[in-house]
Amino acid sequence: MHIDPLALCVEERYKLLIGAIVPRPIAWVSTISADGRLNLAPFSFFNGVSANPMSLLFCPANKADGSEKDTLANSKPVAEGGQGEFVVNVATESMARAMAACAEPLPFGSSEFDAAGLKPAPSTVVRPPRVEGSPLAFECRTDRVIRLNPGAPSGGNIVLGRVVHICAAEGLISDRYHVDPAQLAAFGRMGGPTYSLTRDRFDLPMGLAALAQADPIAH
Amino acid sequence: MHIDPLALCVEERYKLLIGAIVPRPIAWVSTISADGRLNLAPFSFFNGVSANPMSLLFCPANKADGSEKDTLANSKPVAEGGQGEFVVNVATESMARAMAACAEPLPFGSSEFDAAGLKPAPSTVVRPPRVEGSPLAFECRTDRVIRLNPGAPSGGNIVLGRVVHICAAEGLISDRYHVDPAQLAAFGRMGGPTYSLTRDRFDLPMGLAALAQADPIAH
Repeated sequence: MHIDPLALCVEERYKLLIGAIVPRPIAWVSTISADGRLNLAPFSFFNGVSANPMSLLFCPANKADGSEKDTLANSKPVAEGGQGEFVVNVATESMARAMAACAEPLPFGSSEFDAAGLKPAPSTVVRPPRVEGSPLAFECRTDRVIRLNPGAPSGGNIVLGRVVHICAAEGLISDRYHVDPAQLAAFGRMGGPTYSLTRDRFDLPMGLAALAQADPIAH
Repeated sequence: MHIDPLALCVEERYKLLIGAIVPRPIAWVSTISADGRLNLAPFSFFNGVSANPMSLLFCPANKADGSEKDTLANSKPVAEGGQGEFVVNVATESMARAMAACAEPLPFGSSEFDAAGLKPAPSTVVRPPRVEGSPLAFECRTDRVIRLNPGAPSGGNIVLGRVVHICAAEGLISDRYHVDPAQLAAFGRMGGPTYSLTRDRFDLPMGLAALAQADPIAH
């Protein structure tokens, strides 16, 4: 089956991307506006970028009218009128419904913390708070925003951030910086309204040694 | 527990990123050099960016000596000496060992296709081939490369690509552009040598309606 993206509408292209690029990690991003109003929203076009410098990114698309989402307006650099800071919180299994609730489009300034019954906890280095109860939070300063299609409906944006502080639950991270996946209990985003758990795991060595292994996946 | 990234070495920061940002989708990226030699390598700092324009990105870090990986050298724009094209193949469960094998550092010009027992299949719009047997391939033209730390060991790079063609297995994508997650049988990357399957799925509505649901996750 062959598909030319230019023959599809934006919504069809979006369905293909979210159905095919799976499972996606979820950034539950907290920001604060100039006048101190809190915002909290989930993004699954999200990933690490680099350990040198320690960086991550997420991609808040423009709204249907081409304007910026609150998270982008708050997190863009100060030189562009934003606050230049954000926190990526990890949503653990027990927080799945609260995380999904934060996708509700609320009026600017209405806080998803309140609507989802969540409490903000002070961050250490940046001004936006983290989500109390989240097992791991990356405090970030915005390095830059890359706009692919400024002002266009659903136009893409990349928010690139430097990790400036990490706050983690006790026992989650070993003294060799290994994160316990069972304690983290993260889940990923699939297509449509679907998510996938991270409980069903397998190991493989990297490189040609993998070919010498028995198939680690039960069929 | 509080961690200052600047107090960690690059390898420790990397372990934290890959352990905390989970599950990550896997881009199995095929490229071709100027003289026609094929390269194939997996990247899990990968995600969609936008449906307008239809874009995705992956992040090939510099090697330990600060030089570019073959995938970056091949996929960077023509104006920067590359070929400006790449293909993102989806690795299905049955291809897990072959995908992991492609992380082997081979000499420049030695093809991972041969080493992993894979066959290239012609792409439709771009010159790099796709992986025969992969259920879905995104043919991409490179929009730009963003270098965070040029020449530095493990320095970060972002390869931003425009999707110019999609090749999918028959029956995988519905006429409404829904991708069947069971047929795709994708898996994600976790920390260390660990992967997670996408078989254990649950649904949640987006927005405040999620709060009214019973917990969709069995504990």
